[in-house]
Amino acid sequence: MKELVFIGLGLNDENGITLKGLNEIKTSTEVYMETYTSRMPDFNLQHLETLCGKKIQFITRQALEEENGKQLLQAAENGKVAFLVPGDPFIATTHVTLRIDAEKMGIHTRIIHGISIMSAIVSLSGLHNYKFGKTVTIPFPETPAETPYNVIAQNKKLGLHTLCLLDLREPENRYLTINQAFKTLQAVEEQKQEKIVTQDTVAIGVARAGSDCPLLKAGFIKDLSSFDFGTPPYSLIFPGDLHFMEVDALIAFANAPVEFKGLFR
Amino acid sequence: MKELVFIGLGLNDENGITLKGLNEIKTSTEVYMETYTSRMPDFNLQHLETLCGKKIQFITRQALEEENGKQLLQAAENGKVAFLVPGDPFIATTHVTLRIDAEKMGIHTRIIHGISIMSAIVSLSGLHNYKFGKTVTIPFPETPAETPYNVIAQNKKLGLHTLCLLDLREPENRYLTINQAFKTLQAVEEQKQEKIVTQDTVAIGVARAGSDCPLLKAGFIKDLSSFDFGTPPYSLIFPGDLHFMEVDALIAFANAPVEFKGLFR
Repeated sequence: MKELVFIGLGLNDENGITLKGLNEIKTSTEVYMETYTSRMPDFNLQHLETLCGKKIQFITRQALEEENGKQLLQAAENGKVAFLVPGDPFIATTHVTLRIDAEKMGIHTRIIHGISIMSAIVSLSGLHNYKFGKTVTIPFPETPAETPYNVIAQNKKLGLHTLCLLDLREPENRYLTINQAFKTLQAVEEQKQEKIVTQDTVAIGVARAGSDCPLLKAGFIKDLSSFDFGTPPYSLIFPGDLHFMEVDALIAFANAPVEFKGLFR
Repeated sequence: MKELVFIGLGLNDENGITLKGLNEIKTSTEVYMETYTSRMPDFNLQHLETLCGKKIQFITRQALEEENGKQLLQAAENGKVAFLVPGDPFIATTHVTLRIDAEKMGIHTRIIHGISIMSAIVSLSGLHNYKFGKTVTIPFPETPAETPYNVIAQNKKLGLHTLCLLDLREPENRYLTINQAFKTLQAVEEQKQEKIVTQDTVAIGVARAGSDCPLLKAGFIKDLSSFDFGTPPYSLIFPGDLHFMEVDALIAFANAPVEFKGLFR
């Protein structure tokens, strides 16, 4: 059987995998895993190996990208290969090329979905899923943040919420903080002056979505800037028009100040 | 311990739950489940009860909505209650009120995330997640489809993809088909004439996302209208501007016709 099964590991640790995913690993000839597309802070390799009864081989970004996944594809030509990926395997676009290459070589591919950071954040916030517009990543300060600023502006104009992932460089243990993200966006605000990200803008900071200790705090940027969110990873939501039920949710789940009662349309 | 833990069951069957979710059930005093917010075609209650070693009580929409979740909240005042919900517990907004009510009563709430249909569809398609705009549900023909038409139009104008969930009424075993969805949208097209949903519009039909036998077919509406997608549930994607890698993915994973090569910008 020539088969490459992409298995989502979900969020935070090895217990984020589904029963389906675990069962697929158990029946695989070889098991590979990457940890560079996303962070799994509490992942325990040994525990997962015990659970599935298989040896798991790490594969580097270099081995995948520079050699076009040769190692994985060769293994999949001789059996069923499981490839473990943090979150949901294709929410990051990184592995789409590998899947296309496999299909072109006549290797059957399948996806066992995992929990995605995107739906975890939306779910934690209590905001209405169908009111989110385009998602965006806020980069480190050395890269200009005009695109995220424009995306937030466009979504707001349409009354839509913006989910912002904050950049991270896992190998360097470097994470953009919520306060840094504000500063990056405010630098664009100073040039464009569209009043999209000011001290009085409403935002929701999210830390450690998908872990056992997520933290949400809704407020005005002037208040959130000095708020201690604890350890990474972080994300941000810039709400568009808020329904009164969404305001109630932000007060109940994200400790929003009572002034939020006046925000909904 | 006063606690209400919302646990996502994921998609299709009981093996869609995470190890974390299963462990939470095992340590709960009482376990409730609802099956009305989404379809889990191959769900086996007895198997899940065996896996977790607990009796699972079904709760009806009536018991939750008309009685404001009284049964669940009362149980949570006396211990740790697990509430099992298809997909991710808060991607449908149905249970947000229950969580707010619990928090107001001093009952601690937590979320164990599940696979959401939204990320499963995006993941299967190979399209870039950050290029999706607002999501929309296409209703049964008795309800006008002007809103979904407008959402698709707005997203297209911005170059963004639109994910369309197709309406379903689980108790009546009634599912909007992909062909019916086209007809509903084309009725709006006839009035508005904005050339958003014509016979030559590109779309991707998705059947049984998250199951063991998902099927995707990309093509022009004139070709997809007569395509046999098999059993429900169904969903649809109307792409905006396509990157050449996205076109390659649609050819490899969704059997798109070779004319798609000319579509990307």
